[in-house]
Amino acid sequence: MKAPPGQPFPPHRYDASLQGHKLTVAYRGTDFFGWQRQAEKRTVQGCLEEALAKLWKQKIDLQGSGRTDTGVHALGQVASFNAPRLHNAVVLQRALNANLPRDVRVVKCRLVSPAFHARFDAQEKTYRYLVLNQMVHDPFTVDTHWHVPLPLDLPAMRKAAAALLGEHDFASFTSNPGYERSRGTIRTLRRSSITHSGHVLIFHFTSNGFLYRMVRNLVGGLVKVGLGKMTVHDFERILRACSRSEAPPNAPAHGLYLTDVTYPPQRVSK
Amino acid sequence: MKAPPGQPFPPHRYDASLQGHKLTVAYRGTDFFGWQRQAEKRTVQGCLEEALAKLWKQKIDLQGSGRTDTGVHALGQVASFNAPRLHNAVVLQRALNANLPRDVRVVKCRLVSPAFHARFDAQEKTYRYLVLNQMVHDPFTVDTHWHVPLPLDLPAMRKAAAALLGEHDFASFTSNPGYERSRGTIRTLRRSSITHSGHVLIFHFTSNGFLYRMVRNLVGGLVKVGLGKMTVHDFERILRACSRSEAPPNAPAHGLYLTDVTYPPQRVSK
Repeated sequence: MKAPPGQPFPPHRYDASLQGHKLTVAYRGTDFFGWQRQAEKRTVQGCLEEALAKLWKQKIDLQGSGRTDTGVHALGQVASFNAPRLHNAVVLQRALNANLPRDVRVVKCRLVSPAFHARFDAQEKTYRYLVLNQMVHDPFTVDTHWHVPLPLDLPAMRKAAAALLGEHDFASFTSNPGYERSRGTIRTLRRSSITHSGHVLIFHFTSNGFLYRMVRNLVGGLVKVGLGKMTVHDFERILRACSRSEAPPNAPAHGLYLTDVTYPPQRVSK
Repeated sequence: MKAPPGQPFPPHRYDASLQGHKLTVAYRGTDFFGWQRQAEKRTVQGCLEEALAKLWKQKIDLQGSGRTDTGVHALGQVASFNAPRLHNAVVLQRALNANLPRDVRVVKCRLVSPAFHARFDAQEKTYRYLVLNQMVHDPFTVDTHWHVPLPLDLPAMRKAAAALLGEHDFASFTSNPGYERSRGTIRTLRRSSITHSGHVLIFHFTSNGFLYRMVRNLVGGLVKVGLGKMTVHDFERILRACSRSEAPPNAPAHGLYLTDVTYPPQRVSK
């Protein structure tokens, strides 16, 4: 993500003789201990790096646009790595997918400049959160939607979601305020809206950056508004309080999807 | 299902002093060895009978509208049982769901006449089959859609599907011709169509009865037509041949859904 104001990312060192690669990755987070590589644990980064090591017969360091927690899904996570040129994009995508477990897929592959960095160059991220709002749970969405069996006041939730638009200090909506405060907690939300399709509510958030667990904290608060346990006014007051101790409990991981990461066009050219 | 012509089902004996119950059940078939109770194996009927036994503190015999194979899903399987009246329908549905694993849900519950029998009284069944037709598999549909990565000729498939409408001898499309022949292999298809939504093809079949694995055999054939490996004319010839040895391999179980079972209204009254 963009470096927080006043704290630029350290200069990104790379070997200009290598080929840059940009992968767009989808995964069902259910059986992963999140994105980030961990010894002895099944993670998405770990699986991808294993597949890369098989193809290149050497260890290759993969950079994600950011971490996702255990159980969180992705439709468009982006990752980058530099390596000697081996295959064109089409062949590489196929070769990687042939070496990946079936709950993670490379959905797009692009050869880019070795200067490209999936995290440092990210411009905006989009998350989606799915809530199944009906009395009886659906056996097909147990791991993919948060089941809320009580009626939700959609107009009130939409009003609260709209209050998040624009630039705010989101300190009330991070689960790691100490760490985040050192980086700055001001972010700009360009999209904050709720659509629905049948009994499924879809929360959409697009921002230049998200704090740790910010989306799950926002959804937790919005659903509390929807349940009538908090007014829109209370929700806005919590936002203004800039203090995590004010915020409602967060929504579970399994309804969350990282759907899109965008980059300035000049950063992803060859 | 309706008894085959000339072979009525044996008279259905029941204790008229008991309360009849009709359950509509959804399940994700992935982790079940099909519908039918089997010793030492996890089946949907087994799980439901366990939940019934907990509530009534006695063994209760549950009748499904028909079996489904390992991996096959249901949105609207119907089952019936007779037992002393214990709860109203709303409370019973909640109590059953509280005692069921999360991959099976009672989506509807109704008190009916003890004469009602989920299998013998069934009038029509509807199946749906989902094909994901794109190059890269989707990690979210691995257990719920058949992934066909090559282009499919939808107009040709639709023409072949339409040829199935009406009354035919479907002997070419059963995986158990010996058994089925003894019951008769003539059925009437009221719906046989293919819709699509994005990259997902949805096959719809409604009939007064289906032979063993008939839907998977039909889909296997239709996809072969779609791939250009068989002409519509060949498909029609296979139907007319009335011989399983003519038919193409069947489609995998995990794309198949039993979506609906209908009954004459007078059979489901109290």
